[in-house]
Amino acid sequence: MKMIAEHRNIGLSGRIEAALDAALLRGAVSPAPPTLVEALRHSVFPGGARVRPQLLLAVASACGDDMPGLSDAAAAAVELLHCASLVHDDMPCFDNASTRRGLPSTHAVYGEQIALLAGDALIVMAFDCLARAGLAAPARVCGLVSVVARGVGMPGGIVAGQAWESERSCSLDTYHAAKTGALFEAATMAGALAAGADPGPWRTVGARLGAAYQVADDLLDAVALPGEADKPTGQDVTHTRPSAVKAFDVDGAVAHLRLLVEEAAAAVPECRGAEQLRDLVRVQATRLVPRRLIHTAA
Amino acid sequence: MKMIAEHRNIGLSGRIEAALDAALLRGAVSPAPPTLVEALRHSVFPGGARVRPQLLLAVASACGDDMPGLSDAAAAAVELLHCASLVHDDMPCFDNASTRRGLPSTHAVYGEQIALLAGDALIVMAFDCLARAGLAAPARVCGLVSVVARGVGMPGGIVAGQAWESERSCSLDTYHAAKTGALFEAATMAGALAAGADPGPWRTVGARLGAAYQVADDLLDAVALPGEADKPTGQDVTHTRPSAVKAFDVDGAVAHLRLLVEEAAAAVPECRGAEQLRDLVRVQATRLVPRRLIHTAA
Repeated sequence: MKMIAEHRNIGLSGRIEAALDAALLRGAVSPAPPTLVEALRHSVFPGGARVRPQLLLAVASACGDDMPGLSDAAAAAVELLHCASLVHDDMPCFDNASTRRGLPSTHAVYGEQIALLAGDALIVMAFDCLARAGLAAPARVCGLVSVVARGVGMPGGIVAGQAWESERSCSLDTYHAAKTGALFEAATMAGALAAGADPGPWRTVGARLGAAYQVADDLLDAVALPGEADKPTGQDVTHTRPSAVKAFDVDGAVAHLRLLVEEAAAAVPECRGAEQLRDLVRVQATRLVPRRLIHTAA
Repeated sequence: MKMIAEHRNIGLSGRIEAALDAALLRGAVSPAPPTLVEALRHSVFPGGARVRPQLLLAVASACGDDMPGLSDAAAAAVELLHCASLVHDDMPCFDNASTRRGLPSTHAVYGEQIALLAGDALIVMAFDCLARAGLAAPARVCGLVSVVARGVGMPGGIVAGQAWESERSCSLDTYHAAKTGALFEAATMAGALAAGADPGPWRTVGARLGAAYQVADDLLDAVALPGEADKPTGQDVTHTRPSAVKAFDVDGAVAHLRLLVEEAAAAVPECRGAEQLRDLVRVQATRLVPRRLIHTAA
């Protein structure tokens, strides 16, 4: 049973990487400015855990996945938008991070101009992916574009989350919901939409999982030992940003994380692959946290 | 006859401003980060000439405009993307322009972080506009999203045009086609698509008009007297960018502009409002150029 699950997981990964590659190739058709073409590839490959598109495809599968090409495009769209947010977030005017996923960040290699354009191009590419794949089911595309836009745009998506960092005060929940929850919510809802299913029941799954993921990220930022994180840590303190660790301390944050994960798992509606999905939810939300913390609080 | 044309023009302007306002209001629903909400409005209002959405609605009208709500959304989308490109282009890592349309640029008022996020949010908002307005005609939305994405994304849209500025060499035609022509092309094609018409015949109209507009912009950048331009000039020389004035000198550029405008007008397909559209094409493409230059070369 475990082998089958792992094999299926490799299958999803293959679909995601292929869909991302196809999108980048369409953006590289000559005459295309070669440095930006390179920068786009650098911003997307090699990837991180591809958590959001994995989740999207898992939900699509649970809903029947009757148009796998559209699900793949939606998965690529969500990951392209995530990559865009990382590229812009790493820029000198934000985190000024010189590394990402263990490699130099996009602006560190190609400069600020190209990094700014790379983020913009990835956002546009994401929506183009959806439109191209949806010609056979245009009604689904309208829903997908709206759901995905809500995950990244104003008033409650990623850009809103980053903008809250410039405000004097904001609620931790509003900030986390926008910065991380919204795109997870979009991922689960888009998985259902791509398969022609009602996205409503999947909203809470994504929202809780996103909240859990952000707590895990705050924990990593606060307590990672050298080598445990693939990006600069201590950013929340450096940039005086709200954080679950500041709000609850380390043990409280771990407990909060566990609660959110259980809420996410409990929100998975009854469907063919419900149990597998609940397992995925638990694994994905905790994989970012150093094991020693999970064990301490267990 | 002239009065009717002017009245219709005021009508189009009203539609454009209302559609932009509606999009911004949707992005400001509470809880939204207030500084970014303000910055988005500052980036869009007061507008410039709204040339692209005017053109889009004029084409939609010529094609019957049977879904004015969708045409308005497409017009807003194209203008939001244009505004996004201006906000990012004005940033310190690009033109470092402190004014735009006679007012402080977005980053000059709100800082680089918020300006970067404002551009991102405007791009997302543009695609969301299309999806929301197209629920009654989803098949048109897929075409609109693709056409609009091609106008701004890779390999040949606005971001490509800006990325060519970082390359050691590029053809002036490729650069201009991407930096300006592509969104004009998208505007004319989207006008036809929004009205359910074949966008193909409208492609050349937009491409030639965009090329003309870019030549007009190069002329203004090179020779504007104080007060003639609403943004900093001399940028092409400062940033050693390709320019029609460098390639052809001033008189040659004016002659080239006139040829492009006539090609654009000639490409307007026979339709109810063909003559009016040809007039609009001629007026819009030359309105940026100081009259003394047009008169000199006439």
